[in-house]
Amino acid sequence: MGEPVIVVGLGRIGRLHAANLANRLRLAGVVDAVESVARAVGDRHGVAWSTSLDELLPRARGVVIAAPTALHAELVSRAAAAGVDVFCEKPLGFTVDEARRAVEAARGVRLQVGFQRRFDPDWLALADALRSGSLGGPTLFRCSHRNRTEPSGSLGDLFVDVAVHDLDAARWLGGEVAELHAWERPGAACISLRFESGALGLIDVSRRAGYGFECSAELVGTGATMRLGRTSGTELLRHGHALSPLPGDHAERHAAAYAAELEDFAKVVAGADSHGADGEDAVAALRLALLARRSAAAGAPVLAAEAIAA
Amino acid sequence: MGEPVIVVGLGRIGRLHAANLANRLRLAGVVDAVESVARAVGDRHGVAWSTSLDELLPRARGVVIAAPTALHAELVSRAAAAGVDVFCEKPLGFTVDEARRAVEAARGVRLQVGFQRRFDPDWLALADALRSGSLGGPTLFRCSHRNRTEPSGSLGDLFVDVAVHDLDAARWLGGEVAELHAWERPGAACISLRFESGALGLIDVSRRAGYGFECSAELVGTGATMRLGRTSGTELLRHGHALSPLPGDHAERHAAAYAAELEDFAKVVAGADSHGADGEDAVAALRLALLARRSAAAGAPVLAAEAIAA
Amino acid sequence: MGEPVIVVGLGRIGRLHAANLANRLRLAGVVDAVESVARAVGDRHGVAWSTSLDELLPRARGVVIAAPTALHAELVSRAAAAGVDVFCEKPLGFTVDEARRAVEAARGVRLQVGFQRRFDPDWLALADALRSGSLGGPTLFRCSHRNRTEPSGSLGDLFVDVAVHDLDAARWLGGEVAELHAWERPGAACISLRFESGALGLIDVSRRAGYGFECSAELVGTGATMRLGRTSGTELLRHGHALSPLPGDHAERHAAAYAAELEDFAKVVAGADSHGADGEDAVAALRLALLARRSAAAGAPVLAAEAIAA
Amino acid sequence: MGEPVIVVGLGRIGRLHAANLANRLRLAGVVDAVESVARAVGDRHGVAWSTSLDELLPRARGVVIAAPTALHAELVSRAAAAGVDVFCEKPLGFTVDEARRAVEAARGVRLQVGFQRRFDPDWLALADALRSGSLGGPTLFRCSHRNRTEPSGSLGDLFVDVAVHDLDAARWLGGEVAELHAWERPGAACISLRFESGALGLIDVSRRAGYGFECSAELVGTGATMRLGRTSGTELLRHGHALSPLPGDHAERHAAAYAAELEDFAKVVAGADSHGADGEDAVAALRLALLARRSAAAGAPVLAAEAIAA
Repeated sequence: MGEPVIVVGLGRIGRLHAANLANRLRLAGVVDAVESVARAVGDRHGVAWSTSLDELLPRARGVVIAAPTALHAELVSRAAAAGVDVFCEKPLGFTVDEARRAVEAARGVRLQVGFQRRFDPDWLALADALRSGSLGGPTLFRCSHRNRTEPSGSLGDLFVDVAVHDLDAARWLGGEVAELHAWERPGAACISLRFESGALGLIDVSRRAGYGFECSAELVGTGATMRLGRTSGTELLRHGHALSPLPGDHAERHAAAYAAELEDFAKVVAGADSHGADGEDAVAALRLALLARRSAAAGAPVLAAEAIAA
Repeated sequence: MGEPVIVVGLGRIGRLHAANLANRLRLAGVVDAVESVARAVGDRHGVAWSTSLDELLPRARGVVIAAPTALHAELVSRAAAAGVDVFCEKPLGFTVDEARRAVEAARGVRLQVGFQRRFDPDWLALADALRSGSLGGPTLFRCSHRNRTEPSGSLGDLFVDVAVHDLDAARWLGGEVAELHAWERPGAACISLRFESGALGLIDVSRRAGYGFECSAELVGTGATMRLGRTSGTELLRHGHALSPLPGDHAERHAAAYAAELEDFAKVVAGADSHGADGEDAVAALRLALLARRSAAAGAPVLAAEAIAA
Repeated sequence: MGEPVIVVGLGRIGRLHAANLANRLRLAGVVDAVESVARAVGDRHGVAWSTSLDELLPRARGVVIAAPTALHAELVSRAAAAGVDVFCEKPLGFTVDEARRAVEAARGVRLQVGFQRRFDPDWLALADALRSGSLGGPTLFRCSHRNRTEPSGSLGDLFVDVAVHDLDAARWLGGEVAELHAWERPGAACISLRFESGALGLIDVSRRAGYGFECSAELVGTGATMRLGRTSGTELLRHGHALSPLPGDHAERHAAAYAAELEDFAKVVAGADSHGADGEDAVAALRLALLARRSAAAGAPVLAAEAIAA
Repeated sequence: MGEPVIVVGLGRIGRLHAANLANRLRLAGVVDAVESVARAVGDRHGVAWSTSLDELLPRARGVVIAAPTALHAELVSRAAAAGVDVFCEKPLGFTVDEARRAVEAARGVRLQVGFQRRFDPDWLALADALRSGSLGGPTLFRCSHRNRTEPSGSLGDLFVDVAVHDLDAARWLGGEVAELHAWERPGAACISLRFESGALGLIDVSRRAGYGFECSAELVGTGATMRLGRTSGTELLRHGHALSPLPGDHAERHAAAYAAELEDFAKVVAGADSHGADGEDAVAALRLALLARRSAAAGAPVLAAEAIAA
């Protein structure tokens, strides 16, 4: 399950990364400045914990930095000095100079930054469609990025903390930006983009849209338009129709269910109760299937209470 | 990551179960009658493999049976005799007697059967809504279960192999069935149900619907109706409106992306290339965010080429 | 605007037919057994009214029968005896004999029956797709037909009054029915069909689904599947995608709006107030458009208060 | 059906207005500079036609101006001089001065301008929700307005001819605009708005989006968000859910069908063929309904060929 990775900074996103590593990969330790936090997360996943990155660095091949932005450059430098690859949450720093210093410090190792949309299945489908040429040349990139409510605690800059995701997505899909124009109002902003390619862009961001989280987008191309809605899934618009992909088979449609039923079975083996189907359920369902077969053969309804041949 | 579990029978579904165990839980070995298959899957996951269940049983606390239906009862018995808990693919057997013998043999251990819908997030939401009383009493259960194309190889019975999922779901949600009526045509069938509660049910199944896989359903209640569409997500219909849940935050909306970016980082640490954002991307996005901030402050567009204060 | 048509029976559906005739065609009179009802509807549309069909028949070339079912056969006969074409609400009668007598009586004139789905744009799209062969051969017809609440007053038979629409649609699309099976519970029923072609059918009807009115349907064909949802629009499912048609132009998308703005203007001419755009609105919008043009030319934002060249 | 109205200018939109007047209101005449066009449209609707507005003005109480924009101000003046109310297509003129002269000339009569969205059921629902306070204060207005392909012939200004609709909608819903910023590229443009209220706005327009016509919009409010999609219908987003209205009854869901079946009957009366249900269809459907009733009573399938009691 891969090389050992540690997580430094155990706020909400740090704990999420630690859990993903523990569940699927190889979490080797967790670090937080607050000892009780570090201990709690370490104990939950059965891994080493510390209040000091340096203490755990020797046992890691990779480090995930989810500490406050003010510490990003320093933590990147220390990890890089130890020869450990780095995954850092965005932004790398508050200023371009600070971010650039982090990049320089990381010259000798791998540095990835947490723009997670580049790994979202829907955004990847959009990127793939664009790269494949099936959308033609891009003419408009549009994105709405809205949070339901403001997080508690002090808020960072709306552009640097929130819109930076959309600006990275804009560059990823549309190429370099030549000019931009922005307006802000309390809790919300809109940005217009002019790409070097001549394409245009419109972004709106909100900290408190109220209704829920939304990250929807579309790319209008000369050949077709692809759209990501407010929930998962994509739509391709072309030739007078909107096309949505359908699941290909049960393994695709029920992927989460197949994983969950085995997670449940692992708990059952360890002694837990289950709401899954047991043997009696299986006998009952098989009985109904055989009665349905009999009804189809006889051309008549059958009572479930009827005796059924073994 | 739980107790050691082995998988016996490495066809398509068996390999899926093995991968889910290997990725998230504790795969302790794999068994298949064909040596090359057993070896290939064992090697892929770095676990023991064998052509004999008995050889690997001693190292397991749980066994997942995905062998052909004809072997289910025998394999359940052997696992149970060894005191190992069992997860068995449906159906337990071809006849009710055979299935019941498997249940009897498994008296001393835990026996779960692979009706995966009981673990699907959408089906669980439907079950939860029903149990909570928010749908009122059920009056109609409806389900369409369609495969895109027939699998290659010999086909089992349409009712026993395919509709059995729908009949289990019908019992799970609607309670016991009092009477049923079925018609079959090549590759497709429909089943009408009369539940003991007085509710009615309609099921259609198809082996070759052509357009894709579909497993959609609805439960019409006296208080509200809930519907599962052909892709993920649920809809609640009541009081003149259809309600769809919205994502609450980015962690929910981008759960797959957060997991995937760390899987990617684990590969990066191991030396692989990545399409993720690197340090230069992060600097570029931060630069745009700071320019947007400047545009908002100045009330004027800014060129991306403009110098930006550190 | 066509030949003169009268309406007999001014309950809810009769008043709807009268309004449709008055608005778009040629309503020549209205008849109801209750004088005050007949007078009110006649006065509303400025046409003759009577409590006697015979009185108004001489001025009609067509009659729309929306009286209670018990009177259908008799009214058809009288209209036909007068040589007037007949549009009759369904069902033609309570028994097949009664209905057949009405058909016999109408031999010399045209007789249409009010199965309105045959004129619904979505159902017509389904029928067209089927006739064109693009769906291939039908294998399953499915339809859910649900009312929100029971109408006040005495209820007719659930099959004869409600499901008859679905059975007509089944015949229209799937051809003749060879066999059927039905179950009923209070306020709801389900019907399974076996068509002569070998296709199967599933119908559910409800008088009190609670959430709203629904008339959704699908036809699964060997080549593709078409689906009508709970609101307007169709979906074609094939080759792994769901296709929804997009509007072709503004005239199609805003057809209702174009009609409504002229209805509003007609009222304005007659002295009414309007929420439409007046001259000042038009000047203001034009001004903004010219400022946008200036901003695009200048590459800078413009204040709306700026002077604008004439 | 109202006061007599004439239409001047019989291009595409003028012919649409003439047809709407003829079908539902009172078309009193049509005018076009090209005699053959005027005659053809006049003959189609059985009304007077002319190449001169002055000739037909005396018989009108209202005039619909759909001539080229260059003639709008002059035509408004002539109609107003004759004391006739005016409905004029947008824009009123090419310059603000020209438009203002038309408004001045129309002081003594009513002047409506053809911003049809103000009469679209979905846009009206949005306006109603906003006025009712259920959306709270507006924070963002967003609109995408895209044509499938460029019209043939010479193109007007993208802002004045196309975006003017969106700018009128912005004012209608969001109030006066304080500042705007626009960028244009061939065939497309984007506009950012800052409203006097502090709300922001984003508009994109395209002449050649390729996939179809789209006029979608949303208004994000402090209390809730309402969205109009690319086809008809609205969505209200609030409290973690998207709500879509469901049809209330068959009259609402099948409004178009009820109108169409009577238009068809009017043609049948005039001798045309019909694809509607005739008497034999009605007997067949009734027969099936009575057989379903029998099946439900007997608890057994029935063959359609069975004799049925009269």
